[in-house]
Amino acid sequence: MRAPDDLSGYGEWSEMKKIGAISGFPEWLPAQRMVEQAYIRRIQEQFELFGFAPIETRAVEPLNQLLKKGETDKEIYVLRRLQADEGGEDSNLGLHFDLTVPLARYVAQNQGHLHFPFKRYQIQKVWRGERPQEGRYREFYQADIDVIGQGDLPLHFDAEMPLLLHSLMSSLPIPKLTLLVNNRKLMEGFYRGLGIDDISSVLRIVDKLAKIGGDEVRSQLMETIGLTEDVAQKCLSLAQIKSPGTGFEDDVRALGVTHPLLDEGISELSFVMSMLDRLPEGSVIADLSVARGLDYYTGTVYEGLLEGHESLGSVCSGGRYDNLVQGGRHAYPGIGVSIGLTRILAPFFSKGLISTPRHTPTCVLVALNSAETRQQSMDIAETLRARGIPAEVYHAPQKFGKQIRYAERKGIPFVWFPGNQEDEIDQIRDIRSGEQEEAHCSQWEPSIQDLSPVSLTEAVVGEESEGN
Amino acid sequence: MRAPDDLSGYGEWSEMKKIGAISGFPEWLPAQRMVEQAYIRRIQEQFELFGFAPIETRAVEPLNQLLKKGETDKEIYVLRRLQADEGGEDSNLGLHFDLTVPLARYVAQNQGHLHFPFKRYQIQKVWRGERPQEGRYREFYQADIDVIGQGDLPLHFDAEMPLLLHSLMSSLPIPKLTLLVNNRKLMEGFYRGLGIDDISSVLRIVDKLAKIGGDEVRSQLMETIGLTEDVAQKCLSLAQIKSPGTGFEDDVRALGVTHPLLDEGISELSFVMSMLDRLPEGSVIADLSVARGLDYYTGTVYEGLLEGHESLGSVCSGGRYDNLVQGGRHAYPGIGVSIGLTRILAPFFSKGLISTPRHTPTCVLVALNSAETRQQSMDIAETLRARGIPAEVYHAPQKFGKQIRYAERKGIPFVWFPGNQEDEIDQIRDIRSGEQEEAHCSQWEPSIQDLSPVSLTEAVVGEESEGN
Repeated sequence: MRAPDDLSGYGEWSEMKKIGAISGFPEWLPAQRMVEQAYIRRIQEQFELFGFAPIETRAVEPLNQLLKKGETDKEIYVLRRLQADEGGEDSNLGLHFDLTVPLARYVAQNQGHLHFPFKRYQIQKVWRGERPQEGRYREFYQADIDVIGQGDLPLHFDAEMPLLLHSLMSSLPIPKLTLLVNNRKLMEGFYRGLGIDDISSVLRIVDKLAKIGGDEVRSQLMETIGLTEDVAQKCLSLAQIKSPGTGFEDDVRALGVTHPLLDEGISELSFVMSMLDRLPEGSVIADLSVARGLDYYTGTVYEGLLEGHESLGSVCSGGRYDNLVQGGRHAYPGIGVSIGLTRILAPFFSKGLISTPRHTPTCVLVALNSAETRQQSMDIAETLRARGIPAEVYHAPQKFGKQIRYAERKGIPFVWFPGNQEDEIDQIRDIRSGEQEEAHCSQWEPSIQDLSPVSLTEAVVGEESEGN
Repeated sequence: MRAPDDLSGYGEWSEMKKIGAISGFPEWLPAQRMVEQAYIRRIQEQFELFGFAPIETRAVEPLNQLLKKGETDKEIYVLRRLQADEGGEDSNLGLHFDLTVPLARYVAQNQGHLHFPFKRYQIQKVWRGERPQEGRYREFYQADIDVIGQGDLPLHFDAEMPLLLHSLMSSLPIPKLTLLVNNRKLMEGFYRGLGIDDISSVLRIVDKLAKIGGDEVRSQLMETIGLTEDVAQKCLSLAQIKSPGTGFEDDVRALGVTHPLLDEGISELSFVMSMLDRLPEGSVIADLSVARGLDYYTGTVYEGLLEGHESLGSVCSGGRYDNLVQGGRHAYPGIGVSIGLTRILAPFFSKGLISTPRHTPTCVLVALNSAETRQQSMDIAETLRARGIPAEVYHAPQKFGKQIRYAERKGIPFVWFPGNQEDEIDQIRDIRSGEQEEAHCSQWEPSIQDLSPVSLTEAVVGEESEGN
């Protein structure tokens, strides 16, 4: 099934689409929402298995909180009440654009009530007023986990995040995740060792390596920041280092740059990579080009790609931030990862790569013999529900053919026919096979597959067909 | 546990509260969010048992959609991008203030893809820029179910809503729900039979009966609308009719008013009440004062109160709307109910009426004997997780007393001590009883209660203590 946005071929409804849809705000049909919900539940289960507790933060933050992060001011949606005066209290509120800035505020606000290391997960929508384009949304789901320490936060948490991510992503019916890991101290130390001061400008250019290529990175480093060709080449060479394990260290040392911060970064990244050596080959790669833009990260950084769908860009990302939570007597270093759920699901929906045969959780449609026997049908449905089987009664005493077609259109697997005399036993029909048999509503059991409208083992993301 | 908003007694943190909290935007601590999440899952389960499919709509709607409903303009939050020009496309968007107006737009937009009667549920936050006060929030959860028909929608759906609500609310650990039912046609027909034209003004005044009392209703009807005392008294007498079954009919007839629309309304309400006569006594009451303000309702209307907590006001409400969905060849009558989840939970949290002993989903804390044996502890945790048992490894090789205190503070019921020699068997301690025994991580099982951080059978809302 395709996303409702794709209405080409629906004639008059394409006009309706223009009226109703808003670019960048994706919405799903019920069958797709059931898949999204199944993904969210699976993600919650995994987060909870690892001992992360849920929170939700309000959708709004004070603008000064939101603007702390840096160059994101253009993306923020600001609120005002329709009838309020300009400059009232509400005009200082904006919608959150991620879940990390709100977490930092939440921890500062509630530090006296939280237990550290504080492990929380948070699955909510975020909003960014960006110009919508392929793979960019104005409203989308993020699923975040973070650990916040009080005073300090041991380095092994930097390795636990990839372990958790690997376990989580393997449990979802999506292509294999490759997680790229780097360390900001390593990068900054290397640049400082080369005598560069404008670290953030270098980071910003190096971060574009995958998009613009090595030659362009080198020229930009020379032209924009004024590095010599030799220094620019060393920055590029560092960014081009990749290794599945701790092999990156020799390659970095071979570039001949030294700095205490570089040593610290190498040692941290080596520790993380060696703790991850039990994961399947190719799951985690040290990739020294990953910078994560101008974000608040101070050490380890992550970026995740889906095999065969690298064009989607990073579907999960994160890292360590030692200075985001402010206020109070303690330091609150943190580390976390954010999974871009909408960014994963939306393209799979729009390309029709996820099968969604059921449009309702209903497992059994109880047929209605006549208006007078509605109570009989309702009693059957109630008995089934009390046993955990989703059931609904057909709404009108129409011909059985019409009632069966309703079940077919909604993807309801079974239709229940109440016996219409005292001595007649009820019958149930599997409308896929047409098989029909006698049944008692206090005993009949559907298979687990038929009970659940979405099976995450079946809903495997398919191959892209040619031309997509 | 009290809500984090209640920080009185926390000394310096009350200052923090002023910085972080925003009036009308409630937030919960993790233990409370786990309860809220358990409520939401139970509500979803119940909705799905009745065959309602989930959707989510975007948080924003065009302002002209939001303003269709009537006198709600003051409550709407309008969006603009921080750096955008005034009057750009974004300034026509507002946050939704309920889930019914977005549903109407969604149905009009996707009618070619939906199967009717379309049964959907939707659990999302909504926003209203109201002045915050006791029981009013600017951001809160609503849990809605609606059925939308194509062409027509049989009346028995008006009775199915209360059946579903009764089943749902009985499955939650909250006080008993009393559902008040009325019918707009009955009210309007009665007023028309009395020769009144300004129906909406009468509705608005009568709707305040519970708040301002009968005498005040009568005077306002006379003073504001200019009704004679006799006519005003009849309007009041109608509003004062209450009956557990269909008894209201005789009381209405006794007032001597006649009108075809009145007959229609009486007949509809009688049908609904008689279909509900199997519910426990007191669950549903025909209450002819319920008007639901100036909303879009055209027939049956509902309002639900929690026994012993009537001061919370209506915790669920809804009704039939025949004209809300516009566009297309067909009429799309609908009926639905909205449950004010935040309105139920927030006061119970702030009064400390819901017990929340666990601050994490973690069931087992695996102790860390030393930095060198971290892998051993991680393997144990991984084995437990693979068996569905939430487990985390303590983060530092500290004294066991400290590790146990961490578990105690977070409400983790068990601590696992890995054997520290090859031939030493692991031990598990129930930190509530102090009992400790040998255990194997591939076999040990917690009880179902200990596995789940929130038990909805245990988390019963307590009695209000005096003075609250």
